[in-house]
Amino acid sequence: MIKIRAFGEGDWPAIWLVLEPTFREGTTYAFDPGIREEQAYHYWVELPSATFVAVNEAGQVHGTYYIKPNQPGQGSHVCNCGYVVAQEARGQGIASAMCEHSQRVASELGFRAMQYNLVVATNAGAVRLWQKHGFTIVGTLPGGFKHPELGYVDAHVMYKFLM
Amino acid sequence: MIKIRAFGEGDWPAIWLVLEPTFREGTTYAFDPGIREEQAYHYWVELPSATFVAVNEAGQVHGTYYIKPNQPGQGSHVCNCGYVVAQEARGQGIASAMCEHSQRVASELGFRAMQYNLVVATNAGAVRLWQKHGFTIVGTLPGGFKHPELGYVDAHVMYKFLM
Repeated sequence: MIKIRAFGEGDWPAIWLVLEPTFREGTTYAFDPGIREEQAYHYWVELPSATFVAVNEAGQVHGTYYIKPNQPGQGSHVCNCGYVVAQEARGQGIASAMCEHSQRVASELGFRAMQYNLVVATNAGAVRLWQKHGFTIVGTLPGGFKHPELGYVDAHVMYKFLM
Repeated sequence: MIKIRAFGEGDWPAIWLVLEPTFREGTTYAFDPGIREEQAYHYWVELPSATFVAVNEAGQVHGTYYIKPNQPGQGSHVCNCGYVVAQEARGQGIASAMCEHSQRVASELGFRAMQYNLVVATNAGAVRLWQKHGFTIVGTLPGGFKHPELGYVDAHVMYKFLM
C-alpha cells in the first residue's frame, strides 16, 4: 500500500536515491545527466512550491514529485509537476497515484490548470499515462529533447484544466 | 538607424525605462505587474546567457532582448528569447530587427531551435510578426495567460528551427 505525504527534510537522501538513476540515464528529464546532488535538491525541493514522497508501508520512498507555478505573474495560475518513480518500483501504479494526488494538491493551492513542458515522445508509457489522466497533447516540439541514444527526438507539451 | 549591440552594465537604467511600462501593463509578459526592479534585472540580465539593446544613432535605448536556454541539459539546444520595444518607438521594425538578430546570435551560440513559451493570443501583432519570421504555433495553452482586462486568454507556444 502506497501513501503519499509531504516532503520532510530527512527524506532527501532517499529521494536522491530515486532521482539520481533517472537523471543520470537522461532519457526522460531535461536535467543535465551530470547534475550534482545540490543542484537536484535546488530544482526538486527549494524551487518548487511543494515536494511529496510516495512511501510504502515500511516508510521506504518509492517515488517523488514536485509542484510549482509554471510561469511567474500572469501565468502563475498554471502549475507544473515532475514525477519520478524508483526503478525497482515501476509498474505498481505509483506514477498514477502521484499524478492524481498532484491534481488534488494543485486545486487546493488554487491552480486552474497543469502543464508538462517537455514530455519526451519516446517515453510512450508516460505519454499514455498522462493522457489516461486527462492530459492533452497541446503541441509537439520537433527535436525538442536530446536523447542520449536516439539523438534529437520530439517532446510534447501536455495540459489539463483542473476546473 | 537602429543598431543592436550587447548589453553593458551602464545600460540597465535605460533598459528598465523600456521594460517597466510593459511589465506594469501586464498584457504581454507573464511577469508579475508589480515586479521589483531588482527582480526584473535578475530575469532580464543575470539569468539569461546574453542581453542586447537596440539603440538609435544618438545611443538612446529603444528596445532590448535576452537569450537563454529554454530548458537545462537535454533540452538546452533550444533557446528562448524575450523582446520589448519602448512604447514610443513601436512600428519602426525594431522588434523585427531584434528577432532577426537574436536568431543569428542563437546560431552562433550553437542553439538548434528557438521557442517562445507563452505568446499571448490577444497580442495579435506579435503572433503575426513571429509567424512572418518563420515561427510556427506548435500548440495553444487554453486560458494560459491572465490578462488584466480580458481575464484568462489563450497563449501560444511558438517554435522555429534555426538549422
